Amino acid sequence: MVYELHYWPGIQGRGEFVRLALEEAGAGYVDVARQPADQGGGERALVQTMGDLDPPPFAPPFLVSGTMVIAQTANILLYLGRHHNLAPRDEAGRLWVNQLQLTIADLVEEAHNVHHPIAGSLYYEDQRAAAAQSAVVFRKERMPKFLGYFERILNSGGETGAGLAGEQLCYADLSLFQVVRGLQYAFPKRMAAMSPDLAAVLALAERVERRPNIARYLSSPRRIAFNEQGIFRHYPELDAD
Amino acid sequence: MVYELHYWPGIQGRGEFVRLALEEAGAGYVDVARQPADQGGGERALVQTMGDLDPPPFAPPFLVSGTMVIAQTANILLYLGRHHNLAPRDEAGRLWVNQLQLTIADLVEEAHNVHHPIAGSLYYEDQRAAAAQSAVVFRKERMPKFLGYFERILNSGGETGAGLAGEQLCYADLSLFQVVRGLQYAFPKRMAAMSPDLAAVLALAERVERRPNIARYLSSPRRIAFNEQGIFRHYPELDAD
Repeated sequence: MVYELHYWPGIQGRGEFVRLALEEAGAGYVDVARQPADQGGGERALVQTMGDLDPPPFAPPFLVSGTMVIAQTANILLYLGRHHNLAPRDEAGRLWVNQLQLTIADLVEEAHNVHHPIAGSLYYEDQRAAAAQSAVVFRKERMPKFLGYFERILNSGGETGAGLAGEQLCYADLSLFQVVRGLQYAFPKRMAAMSPDLAAVLALAERVERRPNIARYLSSPRRIAFNEQGIFRHYPELDAD
Repeated sequence: MVYELHYWPGIQGRGEFVRLALEEAGAGYVDVARQPADQGGGERALVQTMGDLDPPPFAPPFLVSGTMVIAQTANILLYLGRHHNLAPRDEAGRLWVNQLQLTIADLVEEAHNVHHPIAGSLYYEDQRAAAAQSAVVFRKERMPKFLGYFERILNSGGETGAGLAGEQLCYADLSLFQVVRGLQYAFPKRMAAMSPDLAAVLALAERVERRPNIARYLSSPRRIAFNEQGIFRHYPELDAD
């Protein structure tokens, strides 16, 4: 079976967390909105496809798997984790990974709100003063709180080289890699200053990056570069150590 | 077995979505932080309990069920839904309800950001100008988009009196009730103006409110009143029709 992933074609965004799981699993998928327009690609077709579904998803990304349409990033990953061995099989383990993924989703939401504190539908240029204030709190309080939390989790297991759910790779490990690289792109000075306190988190990101399927994906044209339309945007005026 | 719910004692907040599910299920639970201080109540004990857990949750609410500690609201509800018949049993149905719950979580997050657009750790009084701008977009764009989405879902089933996942009550129905009452508390003028377009959503909220266990809960001292420390705050200057 080949999955269909439907997501905005020009950004990594929330779709990237799904792409990383699909790539690591070696699952066949079509990134529909990135196909040529005569094969259903493009933003307009995406919006059309979504609106025609009954019941519709609220927003991209959504994954079509046979007759199922699954939306909300953490929900898609819950599904893929179960079917592609990217999460523990027991209930406690599945809930633990879902819990971590939802915490990552909270961090992603806050990282986006830094450059769009007032409204996602307004331009950054129209909320720069508020963004500058928001960035101070995000850098000083929120980045250490979130990343320090994952550092503590990784260190508490006592197993060197293990991930967030122990020895076996889970989809939250892939997502944490994505968040680390995103924050390094958006806040290079701050991440450099924090790096002495994030040894386990940074080491996990490197291990994920070197996995064969992930390394192949990252060097392929399927990986969209970070840019200033996505969640993690490099606005130098918002960064500082 | 008696569950332990751990959440900030003075607000409904995210804990309320868990309380509603526990109450509807008739499950035995202790709302630990609301107990007297000599029984482990209070905010300080909550923070202490959380930090002592290994691995720790990132934030309240968390639920203790036997040896399991489950955090993140939607994750707790995924667990309770499965064990208390508050969600479909088949995979597609479970994922659908989780997807809806995550969409409700997004709405809750945005409703909170209206009065705290710059940072959750700053006072409302220090971000009133940004909040006023944020409220305009939330009222005009986001409330119709989210609530109109749930209205469409409720109407698309074609079953009068059914909820978001069909005939059987699910935990997302309980959460949608909570969101509706919260928005009516925070934005009474806007909700009154929108009500002609929200017949199915408002009717669902009323049906939930009349369920025996929920009605009993709402009139008990266990239900904390809406207030200006929670997610849904009534600041008249942020409301308009």
